[in-house]
Amino acid sequence: MDQRVDFITLGVPDLAAARRFYVEGLGWTPALEVEGEVIFLQVAHGVLLSLWDAKAMAADIGAGAPAGAPGAGVTLSHNVATRDEVPTVLERAVAAGATLLKPAQDTEWGGRTGYFADPAGVVWEVAHNPNWRVEADGRVVIGS
Amino acid sequence: MDQRVDFITLGVPDLAAARRFYVEGLGWTPALEVEGEVIFLQVAHGVLLSLWDAKAMAADIGAGAPAGAPGAGVTLSHNVATRDEVPTVLERAVAAGATLLKPAQDTEWGGRTGYFADPAGVVWEVAHNPNWRVEADGRVVIGS
Repeated sequence: MDQRVDFITLGVPDLAAARRFYVEGLGWTPALEVEGEVIFLQVAHGVLLSLWDAKAMAADIGAGAPAGAPGAGVTLSHNVATRDEVPTVLERAVAAGATLLKPAQDTEWGGRTGYFADPAGVVWEVAHNPNWRVEADGRVVIGS
Repeated sequence: MDQRVDFITLGVPDLAAARRFYVEGLGWTPALEVEGEVIFLQVAHGVLLSLWDAKAMAADIGAGAPAGAPGAGVTLSHNVATRDEVPTVLERAVAAGATLLKPAQDTEWGGRTGYFADPAGVVWEVAHNPNWRVEADGRVVIGS
């Protein structure tokens, strides 16, 4: 598992309220929006901040999702280049002391993801996303 | 407030356990370690992942710190170039709908920081750190 974070995902209880704050309030520009579901904002070279409906996020993580968190849940994502690397990286993390929350599974958007928790309970997603790439200048392109 | 995250900070209940996982387990290389206090790991162009003692982190945030979070607390940091920008950016965030958790205060390490919560409760730090810079190639230099 390379030393890298590609996404910071915030599980928000009210996506419209999150949009009012980040997009209308702070004036930040989305890289991609899927209405009622998710908003992606680029916040560093190669890094997206994702505002995601909290219930959808909890459902995606599954039974291992932290319950009762005050405020939003947060995950950090580590993207890999191929589908096969998703389980490999999950195994590597577990060997290092992580707890597997959800094994590698295909997603409806054509990718493959799994989740683990670090020793403090921080949730990481390991993902292969064929519709994501980072340009040489650091700009992230997401979506087909 | 520019569209940028500079630090992802995880409040960890057991720093030694976090070190065993990230440094010994995953083999990641710290940019800086302060024994028993904090470990910084570079995870993107210009971005550090900070593993910080959870009690110290909660004390730093103060009365506004989220209580009873399962697993680690998380903050996102937005760094600014001058001391004067810290209260300005906090005011900008509050005007956009954020809740002020801690007004701008000088720190013992020579910087100035404050905290706000976004509408979902995600904690952001706004910081001026005179001992932090990002090199042209994206490498972060931290510490004096």
